[in-house]
Amino acid sequence: MNRDPLAGLVVIDLTRILSGPFCTMILADFGARVIKIESPEKGDDARMIGPFIKGQSAYFMSVNRGKQSVTLNLKAPEGRNLLKELMAGADILVENYRPGTMEKWGLDYEKVRALNPRLIYASVSGFGQGGPYAKLPAYDIVVQGLSGLMSITGPEGGAPTRVGTSIGDIVPALFTTIGIMMALFHRSLSGEGQRLDIAMLDGLVAILENAIARYQVNQEIPEPIGNRHPSITPFDSFVVRDGHIIVAVGNSKLFEDLCRVLEIPEVAKDIRFKENVDRHENEKQLKSLLEQALSGYTQAEALTRLGQAGIPCAPINTIDRVVEDPQVLARQMVVEMEHPIAGILKLAGIPIKMSGTPGSIKKPAPILGQDTEQVLKELLGKTQEDIEGLRRNHIIG
Amino acid sequence: MNRDPLAGLVVIDLTRILSGPFCTMILADFGARVIKIESPEKGDDARMIGPFIKGQSAYFMSVNRGKQSVTLNLKAPEGRNLLKELMAGADILVENYRPGTMEKWGLDYEKVRALNPRLIYASVSGFGQGGPYAKLPAYDIVVQGLSGLMSITGPEGGAPTRVGTSIGDIVPALFTTIGIMMALFHRSLSGEGQRLDIAMLDGLVAILENAIARYQVNQEIPEPIGNRHPSITPFDSFVVRDGHIIVAVGNSKLFEDLCRVLEIPEVAKDIRFKENVDRHENEKQLKSLLEQALSGYTQAEALTRLGQAGIPCAPINTIDRVVEDPQVLARQMVVEMEHPIAGILKLAGIPIKMSGTPGSIKKPAPILGQDTEQVLKELLGKTQEDIEGLRRNHIIG
Repeated sequence: MNRDPLAGLVVIDLTRILSGPFCTMILADFGARVIKIESPEKGDDARMIGPFIKGQSAYFMSVNRGKQSVTLNLKAPEGRNLLKELMAGADILVENYRPGTMEKWGLDYEKVRALNPRLIYASVSGFGQGGPYAKLPAYDIVVQGLSGLMSITGPEGGAPTRVGTSIGDIVPALFTTIGIMMALFHRSLSGEGQRLDIAMLDGLVAILENAIARYQVNQEIPEPIGNRHPSITPFDSFVVRDGHIIVAVGNSKLFEDLCRVLEIPEVAKDIRFKENVDRHENEKQLKSLLEQALSGYTQAEALTRLGQAGIPCAPINTIDRVVEDPQVLARQMVVEMEHPIAGILKLAGIPIKMSGTPGSIKKPAPILGQDTEQVLKELLGKTQEDIEGLRRNHIIG
Repeated sequence: MNRDPLAGLVVIDLTRILSGPFCTMILADFGARVIKIESPEKGDDARMIGPFIKGQSAYFMSVNRGKQSVTLNLKAPEGRNLLKELMAGADILVENYRPGTMEKWGLDYEKVRALNPRLIYASVSGFGQGGPYAKLPAYDIVVQGLSGLMSITGPEGGAPTRVGTSIGDIVPALFTTIGIMMALFHRSLSGEGQRLDIAMLDGLVAILENAIARYQVNQEIPEPIGNRHPSITPFDSFVVRDGHIIVAVGNSKLFEDLCRVLEIPEVAKDIRFKENVDRHENEKQLKSLLEQALSGYTQAEALTRLGQAGIPCAPINTIDRVVEDPQVLARQMVVEMEHPIAGILKLAGIPIKMSGTPGSIKKPAPILGQDTEQVLKELLGKTQEDIEGLRRNHIIG
């Protein structure tokens, strides 16, 4: 058996920027042939988003590794016909246009299904294909705001805060990938394709976790609470001599251990801090006592001392430390790849470690249109003459 | 065909708290029979985490819907033998014990594979099964700190900030689900099971997105930058008369539209704000001009005005608004379910909308041990007498 679980599958990738491309990157890492369709003039908008290395967008290169690039002018009927020919032979289609665009081009699911009933047709959009907001524009920060996620992130008593990575794109990308895999599994049993409709807003509402539960139980509107946990104490960042450390104490046994190693056994015996519910109620007083005890230590000293006692703790790493962290490197979670123009590029590795079908990063992100000829010849049987005609008519780049 | 893509599959669920349970919840929503194994005394630790409704943890109930609960004393050899019998007939095993625990119990992958080579055996842990940190304890905030995610989240110039939902658990849960589905797809072709090894830290490193790219290109360490985007401007929250709104302008055409509806056409013509790169360089001056123009509007007025002009914008919703948002309700992303003790409970809906195999929320989270007898009789052929003997010996609850 091939060790890439998706080997032999063809993905037509009509996605741009981040949410769709993150999904098709995973499919490529696990062996699918991902054919990215781009406009001949400028391609994916992400190619224009910095930072740049020798004119190449590091942003684009980081989420489009392992894909092929085919340019097609979808504004011309002939371009759309070529796309239909590609769809007819594909296993999966992923698109993240504004709802209504695929319909406008005559490429909506019902039409495409008539060509290829086995196709899995996945749409990722801001709000989904239906409902009152369906046609509204959305970006990561728009859904971070609407979903309530920003309202529960931020310093205690402070303003709502955007999560510093675009999880409004990435989380729905992961749900889309799960859906595509479920659809593939179903197809392997039934022979039938289907339509997926994933919304960025839905994806963030699905991960609000205990915020929905807390609101309905207490009728108190959850607010930003800094770094502490909404129901477990102490579970927070703490000031030490030269910065901050994180300490996460999930039960009373660990709390006793913590007080012992910090040489404040009286705090462990204090009735105000006996059980988690007591500690949580008296969180501010406890934090102040713990920070007093920690004030004599540097980060390194405190982490060593707590770590040796088996207390969950961590530094707050900056990115320069993350890319050199021994565990991150041991797990191959930051890897290097050579791009033909940009040179050596650091990329995030593959977080799905599988013993039988491990996947791998296949090749760097494509130059715009680099695979147009090869794909049209190989998959659609076009001749060199056809290719030249298409190029003359500005159907391909 | 059954409309649940995972119908007929048996999942042995040895997970607790959040990361593993979130994964098996998705499997249950799509029709797998998820058998949650819990300790007879107290079960999943999450049953003790508040808030509570009539003594039932809303936290536990929100991520364990649709599962069965079987109590087994895994400290007793007889309990582990029953677990092995269950594993022998299962399709998927998910566990999130500290690495080394399954080995200690003689339940490591190599041993279980000998019983059932078709089994997909998925482990979720803080740092993965190998590497220098493998045996260290981890919680969400520990990996949020180590991964660099906190270092890029927070107010501009302020302290690193925890993301207000436990994405250190949830993101790896989604990667685990993708891996399980890939392994199932592979098994449908090859007949072979395999081992998955997912780390919470890996999951967060994988979603750092442009932070790794920015660091390697500029050698500047990314820091918290509040709500603005690291490379697109204006893309931020803005003060209006009665709060904040979000405005996300991805290109110069939209920027002109924004200036037009805010009646500041001179700003659109200002050389400092011509292209995105200019706007980004002069972000502070631009923000001040935009907030001046927005200061006359309430949130509602500003959103109506901008929305009509097609400019991506949004309120920063609090959770009370999210659970009543018309789009969230239209997409069934907050649903109600009746629990036999707690009564009506609001839960997040299913964000993977599939036309052919849509999945559904099957039933409320189980009472501790409610399915022990039925599962042992049905899947292992135990008699009433066997059950009583096991109960007398404290092997089951």
